[in-house]
Amino acid sequence: MTNHRDAALEYARQHKTEFLDSLKEFVAIPSISTDPDAKNEMIRAADWVAARLKALGVEKVVVMPTDGHPVVYGDWPCAPGRPTMLVYGHYDVQPVDPIELWQSGPFAPEVRGENLYARGTSDMKGQVMATLDAIEAVVKTGNLPINLKFMIEGEEEIGSPSLAKWIEQNKSLLAADFCLNPDSGMMGKEYPTITYGLRGLSTFELRVSGPSGDLHSGIYGGVVHNPAVALAELIAGMHDADGHVTIPGFYDDVPGLTEAEHVDFARLPTDEQYYLEKTGVPALWGESLYLPDERVGARPTLEVNGMISGFTGTGFKTVLPAKAMAKISCRLVPHQDPKKISAGFKQYLEENAPKTIRWELIDMKGAPASISDVNQPGVKALEKALEAVWGTRPLFKREGGSVPVVGQLQSLMGMESVLTGFGLPDDNLHAPNEKLHLPTWYKGIEALVHLVFNL
Amino acid sequence: MTNHRDAALEYARQHKTEFLDSLKEFVAIPSISTDPDAKNEMIRAADWVAARLKALGVEKVVVMPTDGHPVVYGDWPCAPGRPTMLVYGHYDVQPVDPIELWQSGPFAPEVRGENLYARGTSDMKGQVMATLDAIEAVVKTGNLPINLKFMIEGEEEIGSPSLAKWIEQNKSLLAADFCLNPDSGMMGKEYPTITYGLRGLSTFELRVSGPSGDLHSGIYGGVVHNPAVALAELIAGMHDADGHVTIPGFYDDVPGLTEAEHVDFARLPTDEQYYLEKTGVPALWGESLYLPDERVGARPTLEVNGMISGFTGTGFKTVLPAKAMAKISCRLVPHQDPKKISAGFKQYLEENAPKTIRWELIDMKGAPASISDVNQPGVKALEKALEAVWGTRPLFKREGGSVPVVGQLQSLMGMESVLTGFGLPDDNLHAPNEKLHLPTWYKGIEALVHLVFNL
Repeated sequence: MTNHRDAALEYARQHKTEFLDSLKEFVAIPSISTDPDAKNEMIRAADWVAARLKALGVEKVVVMPTDGHPVVYGDWPCAPGRPTMLVYGHYDVQPVDPIELWQSGPFAPEVRGENLYARGTSDMKGQVMATLDAIEAVVKTGNLPINLKFMIEGEEEIGSPSLAKWIEQNKSLLAADFCLNPDSGMMGKEYPTITYGLRGLSTFELRVSGPSGDLHSGIYGGVVHNPAVALAELIAGMHDADGHVTIPGFYDDVPGLTEAEHVDFARLPTDEQYYLEKTGVPALWGESLYLPDERVGARPTLEVNGMISGFTGTGFKTVLPAKAMAKISCRLVPHQDPKKISAGFKQYLEENAPKTIRWELIDMKGAPASISDVNQPGVKALEKALEAVWGTRPLFKREGGSVPVVGQLQSLMGMESVLTGFGLPDDNLHAPNEKLHLPTWYKGIEALVHLVFNL
Repeated sequence: MTNHRDAALEYARQHKTEFLDSLKEFVAIPSISTDPDAKNEMIRAADWVAARLKALGVEKVVVMPTDGHPVVYGDWPCAPGRPTMLVYGHYDVQPVDPIELWQSGPFAPEVRGENLYARGTSDMKGQVMATLDAIEAVVKTGNLPINLKFMIEGEEEIGSPSLAKWIEQNKSLLAADFCLNPDSGMMGKEYPTITYGLRGLSTFELRVSGPSGDLHSGIYGGVVHNPAVALAELIAGMHDADGHVTIPGFYDDVPGLTEAEHVDFARLPTDEQYYLEKTGVPALWGESLYLPDERVGARPTLEVNGMISGFTGTGFKTVLPAKAMAKISCRLVPHQDPKKISAGFKQYLEENAPKTIRWELIDMKGAPASISDVNQPGVKALEKALEAVWGTRPLFKREGGSVPVVGQLQSLMGMESVLTGFGLPDDNLHAPNEKLHLPTWYKGIEALVHLVFNL
C-alpha cells in the first residue's frame, strides 16, 4: 500500500496542469442555482460532473431528479469489506453581482499570480475537483482501497431546499460509514482545518401592532405606544449589557467548553484583531468571558436580520406607524433544541410585551446544531492526512454557520460528516473576484490521496 | 347693527341650498396638490376661488404665483378704522387612494343622510365655503362692518413648502389684526371648539452602522454588535417606563399646566375611551400624570416614524446587517426650542451610543410650537359667536399637530391665528368617504356671521 500511496502522490504532482484545466472547464459553467434563467446551465453542470465520475470509472452514475435541481449520484462498490465514504459536494454557485467589480469574467477562469479567479473556484467546484482528482490519482496507480459513493447536489447556495426529501427517499443508496464534506475552509494557508461543529438555527418573525391604521403623530402621539418603539424595546431586552441573550432557558442546554476545547479554540489564529479587520467594526462586542472564536463557534447567538416599520423613504412623514416587524434568528449550539428555543422566545414575549401593543410570533423553520465526534475513524484519518502534507496538526474548529446537508444526514440517517476544504479566508466567497489559491489546492489534493489510504 | 346681524343670519338660513350647490361645485374639482398630473386642476380650483371672491364683491382679487401652486389673494378694505381679518384657507385636497373603498366618487359629491360625501368637503373646502357664505350673508344684507383679506393657498396638504417665502415677500399685502384659520375641527357636533395651541416639530434621521458590509450571521454573530439591535437599544432608551422622554433637557422649557388650563383640558369630551376607540389600540400609553388630551396637546412627545434594517422581504436571510436607520420626530410645545432639542438629542447619543457601532444624526427641519393668546379680541369674538349658535361655551383645545401657516404667520409677521372649523372627528379626513355633516356646517356659517359682527 505504501508504494501505491507514493505512486498516487507522484501522479497527483505530475498532473497539476490537467487538474487545473479540468477545473477551469467546470467553473466556466454559470450554474447559478438561484437564477431561474440558468436552468439549462444547471443541467449542463450536473451532466459535466456525471461525465467526470464516469471517466473516473465510477460503476453507477445517475443524474437524479429532485423537486429542484438534480443530484448527481454515484456508487462505486469496488472494495468489499472495506469502509464506504460518501463524497458530498455541490455544483451550484452564488450569483455574480456586482459584476462590474470583477477583474476578469466570473465564468472566464483566469490565473493571476498563484490564484485561479472565477465564481465557484473556492466554493466549491475547486473542492469537488480536488476530491475527484485525488481519487483519479489513486485509481490510475492501483486499485481503490475503499468503497465510494457520491452525492453532488445543485441547491446548496439556496439552502438545499429539496435535499432532505431526496435523502429521505434514497437512504439505502446513500448508506456509508461517513460523509466527506469538503465545503468547509481553512483558517489560513498554513492551517489545515477540520470543522467538527456547526451551529443550528431558529428563525422568527416578530410582528408588533397597535393602532388599527397609521396615525397622525401629532394627533395621537403621547397616548399610543408607538409599535416601532415597542418593538425596539422588546429587541433591546433580548440581550443584557454583556451580550448575553435573555430569552428564558436560552443557555439551559449549552454545554460548557472543556479545557481541551478551550485550548483548541485558543490555538486558532483568528484573534480580536482578525475580526476587527474582517468586519470593519470600531470595536468587538459580545460575551466578555469567551474568546471571539468561542463566541462565534461555540456560543449560541441571537441576531436581528431585518427590521421595518412606518415611513422609510426620502424626506419625512410624521406618521405614528400601525405596526413594526423584525426578522430574528438564533444560531444554536449542539444540544439546544429549536423547539425549546421557540418556547422560550414566546415566554419572553409573554412576560415582556406590554399591554399597550399586540404581538404575533411567526415561528419559521429551525434546525438543530450538529457536532461530529472528533474520535470517529474518518476524522482521525483526515487529521493524519492533513498533518502528513502540512507537517502540522490541523486546527479543529466549530463554525458559526449551518450547512443543511450535515444536519440532514445526521437527523435522517444518523450519518456523521467530516468537514474540511482548501479554501482560504480571503477567497472572496459569495463576492466579486472569488479565487482559489492553487498551491494550497494542490496540497489539498495530496491530503485527500492520503485520506483514501488512511481509512 | 343688531338688525343687520339678524338679517344676515336669516339670509344664511334661507340660502342653504345655494350654499350647498356652490360647495358641490368646488369639491368636484380634483385639486390634489401632490399629484403632478393635477396641475391644471389646481389652477382651475384657484380660479374658481378667485371668481367666488369677485362675485362676493372683494375689491382686489389676484391669483398669485408661488414656487409651487398659486395663492389666491384678496383685499377688501371697506370699513376704514375697523379691524382687518385675514381669512386663511386652502383649496388643495389629499389624494383619494384607496379609491375602491369610496361609496361614491371622491369628486362626485353626494348627499347621503345628513352628510355630503366627497374629498375636501371637511378638509377644507367646506370650511372655506362656510366663511365665504357667512360673508355673503353679511354683505347681501348691509355693509360689511370689518376689513377683509384672503389668503387661500394650494399646498397645505403637502406641507405648504412655498408659503413661507411667499408670505415673506408679501408681508404688506397680508397685514391684518389677526388670521381666521378655519382648518381646525370640532371635538364633536355638540362641542364648538377653538384651537389655541399647536405643537412644533423636530425631525431626525438616526443612522447606525457597524460592519463595512452585511455579514454572514453565522460567521460573525457573537462578536459584532448588530446595528439593528444597537439602534433598537438606543430607541428603547429614549423613553422611561412611564413614557417620559429621556433626551437631556427635553422638558427644561416645558411650562407646567395652569389650573385653568387643566380645567379646560378636563372639560374636553375626549377621554380614555375616546382614544381607545379612535386608535384601536388595546390600551393607552404615556405619561400617567397627565390626561390623554394633555399628553397629546400640551406635552412634548418623541415618535419613531420609520425604521429599517437588513432583509425585510419574504422568507429569511440570516444576514447580520451593516446598518440600521430610524426616522424620529419630536412634537414640541410652546417655549421649546428645536435647536436645543437637537443638541439634547446629540448629547443623548454621545452619552449612550456604544463604542461597538458608529452613528450619524441627520437633523432635518424643525419648527417651534405656536400658541395663541386666548384673550386676544379675535378669540373673544369667536368664543361669543360659537356660544351664540351652540348655546354652550366652546372648548379650548391645544392640538398635537402642526399647521405650517400658523407658525409662519407668527414668526414672519407676528400675526396671531384663531383656529376653528366645523368638521367632526368622524369626517374621514385623508381617508376614503370623507364627508361633511351639513347641519353642523350650517351652524358654522351662522357662527361666522356672528364673528363678523362681534369684532
